[in-house]
Amino acid sequence: MSEVSTSIRKDISLYCSSCGASFPPDMRLLACTVCGEPLLVKYGEISTNPHMEIPVYSCNALVSLGEGNTPVIKMDKLGSRLPCGNIFAKLEFMNPTGSFKDRGTAMMISVAKGFNIANLVEDSSGNAGSSVAAYCGKAGITAHIFVPSSAPQPKLDQISVYGAIAHKIEGTREMVTDAASDFVDEKGYVYGAHKLSPYFLEGTKAFAYEIARHNLGEMPEHIIMPVGNGSLYIGAWLGFKELIFKGVISKMPKMHVVQASAVKPLVNLFSGNRKEEPIGITVAGGISVSNPPRSKLIGEILLETGGHAAAVDDEVILEWQKILAQENGIYCEPTSSSAFAGLEYLIRDGIIAKKESVLVAVTGFGLKDNLYI
Amino acid sequence: MSEVSTSIRKDISLYCSSCGASFPPDMRLLACTVCGEPLLVKYGEISTNPHMEIPVYSCNALVSLGEGNTPVIKMDKLGSRLPCGNIFAKLEFMNPTGSFKDRGTAMMISVAKGFNIANLVEDSSGNAGSSVAAYCGKAGITAHIFVPSSAPQPKLDQISVYGAIAHKIEGTREMVTDAASDFVDEKGYVYGAHKLSPYFLEGTKAFAYEIARHNLGEMPEHIIMPVGNGSLYIGAWLGFKELIFKGVISKMPKMHVVQASAVKPLVNLFSGNRKEEPIGITVAGGISVSNPPRSKLIGEILLETGGHAAAVDDEVILEWQKILAQENGIYCEPTSSSAFAGLEYLIRDGIIAKKESVLVAVTGFGLKDNLYI
Repeated sequence: MSEVSTSIRKDISLYCSSCGASFPPDMRLLACTVCGEPLLVKYGEISTNPHMEIPVYSCNALVSLGEGNTPVIKMDKLGSRLPCGNIFAKLEFMNPTGSFKDRGTAMMISVAKGFNIANLVEDSSGNAGSSVAAYCGKAGITAHIFVPSSAPQPKLDQISVYGAIAHKIEGTREMVTDAASDFVDEKGYVYGAHKLSPYFLEGTKAFAYEIARHNLGEMPEHIIMPVGNGSLYIGAWLGFKELIFKGVISKMPKMHVVQASAVKPLVNLFSGNRKEEPIGITVAGGISVSNPPRSKLIGEILLETGGHAAAVDDEVILEWQKILAQENGIYCEPTSSSAFAGLEYLIRDGIIAKKESVLVAVTGFGLKDNLYI
Repeated sequence: MSEVSTSIRKDISLYCSSCGASFPPDMRLLACTVCGEPLLVKYGEISTNPHMEIPVYSCNALVSLGEGNTPVIKMDKLGSRLPCGNIFAKLEFMNPTGSFKDRGTAMMISVAKGFNIANLVEDSSGNAGSSVAAYCGKAGITAHIFVPSSAPQPKLDQISVYGAIAHKIEGTREMVTDAASDFVDEKGYVYGAHKLSPYFLEGTKAFAYEIARHNLGEMPEHIIMPVGNGSLYIGAWLGFKELIFKGVISKMPKMHVVQASAVKPLVNLFSGNRKEEPIGITVAGGISVSNPPRSKLIGEILLETGGHAAAVDDEVILEWQKILAQENGIYCEPTSSSAFAGLEYLIRDGIIAKKESVLVAVTGFGLKDNLYI
């Protein structure tokens, strides 16, 4: 175990939201040793001031590339297609590497720096990989990124541009994770996996804080996003919970999950569909995750907030990518446009009523996924 | 001439900074009818409040995609390479289409909408083209974008993705402008050229306002940016001037120009080199402009602010692109990294002294220019 620097808060621990077990902070501990569930960060003291709690002592200890504070725009041309209240889009692709991942990565790598980590291993469908590559470059940490060789070329290029060592793996997404895992075992490096890291979620929490701070005139009743591993979804929920605790907001929005029809483990979980389903191929590569490690917690958040999980077809996802670009000036990945396809579905299904307001997370830049252009 | 809507400020006029002639606002008037110089916007009344003057009546009249409010980060790993005071980078690539152009485009298209324009023609090396395409999509204006067929593929793709009509022209950059100009004459459409539009500069002014508002602890003594047509350079200068008039800042920073050695009309102008020079090819495609229409004004700004104009070689530009990505987590276009090459030059040349602070504009996302990856 590397020596811990003073930049990490002394009052944090890791805890298991499933069985309640508690552990001292560590970069190598990614799951509860009792029940196997991934862990969350717990703060000994939560201040009642409106600032977000972070696992490092101060903003000076952050490895930052200017992430966060993404704009929210009002989607005023969607009324006829999406008959609900105000629709806000939070443009998460306007982050330093072009995706929301930068929020989580900034925090994860800040903690890794606090632990004096020299080598970090990540596996990713592309966006997390390029994000980790960038922040490791800034922090002086050598990044080993395992990525499917079928990932879009701009994402593969981006990983190398930031100076990370890219390990391109042929085969399924699971085979990429296995290769990363074997490499970690062989080298003894830290597996800084964004999908398991409790610190990553402490970074994505800021998404919720910003929504509360934006001058939208109303707190959106519904939050909709594409969900694969759920690192933005869970982080946002943690953020809203913290904001309620601090008395900044009074009510939790309904948090909805959108997945592609071809890969929908969370939709199946939500609808109680327990039969084995073949995993297909989807244009929404960022949410093509057949077995999200935090699915239990995601199921609980859906239940607690009154959210729904919607599955959408690829052709509708691509149609929405086009509508967003051509009529609304937003060029996002298919993964991101799936959220609007999901919104359409939820309105049609009566889950979102006529006057209810919605905020959609637009997670990744279209420039990063050129496979369907 | 189309009917003017009430969204355009009644007290604005266009004026020639060269001969002083004044004209009513118009989308078709791009140069002084007396002396031929491009025009600037003049406000009848400048309020003394600290808000930026804009040519439309209110922010509600803006066609916005969330542009501006880009982050500034402190470049704390450059000390050994660039021995000066604090170096700040303003990440202009974190704009909705991935370049600073969005600031200017938002304003130009807002005014075009105010004039009820239905078709707009632009010519561009790529970034302005994709920016105009996006904002026209949002505004419901048909965009005709003339672009060199040699532009990087992501930029060409992006123009079409936003639903604009892309006219790819083979030949020199000048031939692209000529083709756009012929098309305007033939169709009677408005030529919304970012390099000539006075409204575009009213948008890029915000760059200066944000620098004054950022909590940097100091006002940077030097501003450095790549300059082709100078739409950010001139806009920033107009912004600083307005801020001085409004009493928000007291001093104009020195505004430096960086160009590529192969295409350096402004460096030649600055150094008094009047002999004809063959135009070469450079990796910095965004500033490959052999004859900037506002070069006279740029020369005056250099003189007035005490700025310098530096020319940098392609190999140094590419070396800086690598340093920024691998050690600092910033993935920018070669056009943008040229500014850091320029900073190195200005320090070596004694123009920027040891303790003086610098702000560098990082103008375009590396994802947009993949020619040298």
